[in-house]
Amino acid sequence: MIVGERINTSRKNIRKAVEERNAAFIQEEARKQMASGATMIDVNAGTSVTSEIEDLKWLVNVVQEAVKAPLCIDSPNPAALAAALPLHKNGQPMINSITAESARLAAILPLVKKYDTLVVGLAMGDSGMPSGVDDRLAAVRAIASAVRKEGLPLSKVYYDPVICPVSTKQTEADAAVQTVRYIMTNAAEGRELAGAHTICGLSNVSFGLPKRVLINRTYLTLMMAAGIDGLIIDPTEPQMINTYYATRVLLGKDDFCMEYITADREGKLGQ
Amino acid sequence: MIVGERINTSRKNIRKAVEERNAAFIQEEARKQMASGATMIDVNAGTSVTSEIEDLKWLVNVVQEAVKAPLCIDSPNPAALAAALPLHKNGQPMINSITAESARLAAILPLVKKYDTLVVGLAMGDSGMPSGVDDRLAAVRAIASAVRKEGLPLSKVYYDPVICPVSTKQTEADAAVQTVRYIMTNAAEGRELAGAHTICGLSNVSFGLPKRVLINRTYLTLMMAAGIDGLIIDPTEPQMINTYYATRVLLGKDDFCMEYITADREGKLGQ
Repeated sequence: MIVGERINTSRKNIRKAVEERNAAFIQEEARKQMASGATMIDVNAGTSVTSEIEDLKWLVNVVQEAVKAPLCIDSPNPAALAAALPLHKNGQPMINSITAESARLAAILPLVKKYDTLVVGLAMGDSGMPSGVDDRLAAVRAIASAVRKEGLPLSKVYYDPVICPVSTKQTEADAAVQTVRYIMTNAAEGRELAGAHTICGLSNVSFGLPKRVLINRTYLTLMMAAGIDGLIIDPTEPQMINTYYATRVLLGKDDFCMEYITADREGKLGQ
Repeated sequence: MIVGERINTSRKNIRKAVEERNAAFIQEEARKQMASGATMIDVNAGTSVTSEIEDLKWLVNVVQEAVKAPLCIDSPNPAALAAALPLHKNGQPMINSITAESARLAAILPLVKKYDTLVVGLAMGDSGMPSGVDDRLAAVRAIASAVRKEGLPLSKVYYDPVICPVSTKQTEADAAVQTVRYIMTNAAEGRELAGAHTICGLSNVSFGLPKRVLINRTYLTLMMAAGIDGLIIDPTEPQMINTYYATRVLLGKDDFCMEYITADREGKLGQ
């Protein structure tokens, strides 16, 4: 699963297009991401507290007119999610995101159930940004317990290990990778967290460093090697997509290297 | 440990320089690799069966005049190794390579002992190219047993998991990575193969595919994540070196990201 991350009002040109209700611009962003390999489109209107609900509803409608993919509806605000979800039409949507905070779980899990959505589960609890693998796994287990209590299968959850800037604390990038490895290994072997998926929005890792795409594309390979099965990326960034195809080859997931060779013929691997 | 792989007569311009005894050209190749981050220089004159011994001796002398680094003397031929090793002057040399073949072990391990060298141990035996992890580990254990029988510590051995073109068989690239992971995990925890190192010449992995550097740089990240502590690469290839620095950051091995930031300031990370 590749979630295209570009339609987010924290990007200046997206914010402008949302404020001006420039549907054509937003729809072109959606189409570009699909053409580059996205299988789902993230929509986030979180920068304006006062207009988020109306902006998000507008985005859902506008994007769905342009592409047939399901949407990842990106807000911590249960009211915004509740307003946007009834408008969703194409396939199974995803809510982005819950955490292990009990208030957030209580408000959002009923929406996961009511609208039969997938959900991103951030590996963090009430105490803010996690530190190390054990801290993340504690939040992962708390989310699993709440999901089961709601009567939902764990296969609805895509755990996000929470990516912090590696420039701030150097051990956290690897801790997030090891969290993904732990979840996917245990889930695959049916020991713990069976059925669970993993996903991550990884561009945060390079915040504060030069050559951010170099860090991001390298981190993509590390996450894929750990077994991640969802990615929230900018698929129009050539270095992300070419690294994605190369990593699939090297992990033995591209029979006869056909996806890679086809991507090269289509000019997706760069010059 | 970064072994610069460029001085190899399988490269056309190197073969020409060796045939013409163009010392200045070879010395410039050695200096360029050191400036790009190599800690050891590989020398290989294997393309000419009739002149290999004289060519290799000449290369050892010429390279040592230019750079102070130890050399990785690269030949399967015990006679060529025996002729070149007495000429080595700067630090501890490495022999590249032994396999688990008993004749090759019997001929080369005494040279490892006599000249106090390190040695690359290819994870392959009498039956040729290995297939899968278990096949490689059988050769790894056979080499360990022969090394111990010779009275040598396993810390002299850098195991190379043997890289085959991923275009030929897609599962072998990951098998080589998992072999490195097995050796390094067990060695670190003192369970098996304690003291052993790993190394690989990885450019073979991309043979037959387009955009070879994309595959090579991605494989570098996978090998580093598996714990490899030696690399045989072309350090003058910008995408290999920038990926090396980025991977170190993300594995938590670059405190305060200082190596990365310095490499950026020195222009080593690309545009």
